[in-house]
Parts: sequence; structure tokens; C-alpha cells
Amino acid sequence: MTDIVVMRAVTSDNQAHADRVRKMLDDNRVVGLNMISGPGSGKTTLLERTIRDNPDLRFGIIEGDVFTARDAARIEAVGAPSIQLNTEGACHLTAHMIETVLPRLDLSALDFVIVENIGNLICPSAFPLGMHKRVVLLSTPEGHDKVLKYPQAFHTSDVVLITKTDVASAVGFDLSVVVSDLKSVNPKVEPWKISAVTGEGLDRWYKWLRSLK
Amino acid sequence: MTDIVVMRAVTSDNQAHADRVRKMLDDNRVVGLNMISGPGSGKTTLLERTIRDNPDLRFGIIEGDVFTARDAARIEAVGAPSIQLNTEGACHLTAHMIETVLPRLDLSALDFVIVENIGNLICPSAFPLGMHKRVVLLSTPEGHDKVLKYPQAFHTSDVVLITKTDVASAVGFDLSVVVSDLKSVNPKVEPWKISAVTGEGLDRWYKWLRSLK
Repeated sequence: MTDIVVMRAVTSDNQAHADRVRKMLDDNRVVGLNMISGPGSGKTTLLERTIRDNPDLRFGIIEGDVFTARDAARIEAVGAPSIQLNTEGACHLTAHMIETVLPRLDLSALDFVIVENIGNLICPSAFPLGMHKRVVLLSTPEGHDKVLKYPQAFHTSDVVLITKTDVASAVGFDLSVVVSDLKSVNPKVEPWKISAVTGEGLDRWYKWLRSLK
Repeated sequence: MTDIVVMRAVTSDNQAHADRVRKMLDDNRVVGLNMISGPGSGKTTLLERTIRDNPDLRFGIIEGDVFTARDAARIEAVGAPSIQLNTEGACHLTAHMIETVLPRLDLSALDFVIVENIGNLICPSAFPLGMHKRVVLLSTPEGHDKVLKYPQAFHTSDVVLITKTDVASAVGFDLSVVVSDLKSVNPKVEPWKISAVTGEGLDRWYKWLRSLK
């Protein structure tokens, strides 16, 4: 049975809440990730595959959605503990929400806590959640022009995953535009191509996760 | 040369601004549409094709983006007047923004004003812009689970366009889920399948536009 928590967005003192989240993670030697993307970029699918392909890594997932508990149910079906946060309208998660629900996960039994933020390329970027790293996903059907149109998400991320590369040619996606635009927005990262369908690029993603442990 | 207007979001008295926008449109017998979707669902591509395929209809376009003037440039390239609104961070347009820029279009020479809202399935739904009709786009790669996850956008729309049907089977999109979910969220509409690549369903969309004139 999926644990659903409905919360309003408390945005005051966000950094203070984020600092307390970080301390909880660090006290338990847990690595925290904040995953950001637009709707339907493949965040949940990547998490399902990551959990299945790495049975020796212990993941706990916090699923942020405006409504429904579908994503947390998908995560539980692949065997990881998950919490479903519903904002019922708010367009991003806040550190206060994470601080509130994090104790529901048994941190002493986890290697990673991954927060799947609300499907929105804009607002989540402005609210740090206390995680150690930020990962942004851009799916090839969304188009190669999105880095400059939504620079905040890309500017603040440690990893940029280009998802759904299996349909890249069908949707006319040109990776060179993303590479070029990232040079101005966030020169420290390069985009990694992945496909949860074909498995392209997953090794690199898994290797990066293991490097954080 | 694209006309770029940078504006902050004034959300107070949104309905009063929307009412004044509506009056400007009605005084000029112009039909206004508010297009809403997540990032990269194909709003601009549909507008390009709609303008090209209907040379007898006179469109003016207001392009909302967080940053860049790329979309307005694309609209001008197909011969329609356009205004680029940049919010520089805000996740939706407001009626105040539309009221401010609408006089830059020659309404007496137009049949339609179409506002392409910020790429965001959440926040734009809460801010009426004074348009007559609201159109929501969902692209097949975003997934068939989005109606219940983002019900506000679908609940308030007059037309639901399922875009990029040319890649529907490649991404495992099941239209029956959308049909079923819409029955609970917005029973008055059914989704229309369209593809700006193959041309599927465009006739119905154009016929609907002409019915509003």
C-alpha cells in the first residue's frame, strides 16, 4: 500500500529546511539526488530500471506529483521503499516537505535517497532540497532547443541526461545543439545519452551513482 | 526583427486584466486562444503548420517563454505577426502581461490571437488570460498517464490535442487511458489525435478553428 502524503508548499526558510535534510542524510551516510525534468521525460522509468539493474544498491525514493500515487506504486513494484508526496497544485517540492517525510524512510538501511521532483522544468530549480547532487533529464521528443529556453534547470545540475534516445532520429533531435547550448549555460557538464528501452548509456549512469557512494 | 518584451508576473487582479483583454478582442471581433502544455509538446510546430495551411485566416501570435525569442522568430518565418514575451523565471503568463502587449498587434487586421503559454502543465491553468477558448496539448512521448497527474490543465480546456501521434507506437502510448481518464476529469471533451509530421487530424483542428470565426 503506497504511503501518500499531501502537503502544501512552505517556501519560507527553504535553505534552513534543506540544511536539516542534508544533515539527516549525512548522519546516515546516505547520498541524496534531486531529479528534475518536464512531464513525461522518463524519470520514473529510469528509476525503475536503475533499481532493477542494481540490486546491491539500496534506494529509497520520494515521488513528487501534483496528484496520484501512480509513480510510487511503480517504484514499490520493483522492490524499493517509496513515499508519494502530492502537492495538489503546487508546481515544485520544497525542503520543508522533504524534511517532513524523510524520517518515514529507514535511512540506516539505504545508500541513496532519490527525490523525483514535480514534472516541471522551471520552478523546482529554485528550491534546493538538501540533496547532494541534482540531475536534470531532457527527453529527445521535447526538442534540442530546451537548454536555452529553460536555463535554470540546466545551469544548476550536476548531470544532464538526454533520455529516450531510441526515438531521437524519429523526432529530429540534434544533440549538437544541446552540447553547444550547455557550453554557455553550464560548461562543467556534458549531456549523457541514455535509453531505458535499449539500455544505451545506462552503464555510465550506474558508474556515476556508484562513484558517489 | 522579433519584438521581445520582458515582464514580471503581476498576479493581483488577474481576472480584471483578463476581462479587459477579452473586451479588446471582442471589440475587434478577434477570437483568442490560450494554448497550454508541458515543454516540447509541439505547440510552436502546430502553430507554424496551422498558419501555413490556412493562408486565408489571419493569425497573431503571442509567444510566452521563460527565455529566448526562438519561438516568435519561427512564427515570423511563416509570415504571421508575433510578440515574444519573456518571463525570465516566472512559470506562467498573466492577463496583465497579455493586456500590456496586445495593443502591439493590429487587432483590426486579425481573425485570431493565439497565446502560446509557458511550457508548463501546472501553473498556466490557474491564470485565465481573457481568451475565448483554452487548448491543451499532450504529446504521445509524455505518456498516457498525464491527465490524472496534471488534471487542472485538462479540466479547464475546451480541446485536448494528442500530438506527435506519428511516434505513438514507438513510445508505447495508449490513447484509451487518456479517453478513460478524461471521462472523470473533463467529460465534455474527447482527445483529438494530431501529427504535424503526417498531417493526421489537422483537418478537424482547422475545422474547429473556422467554427469559432
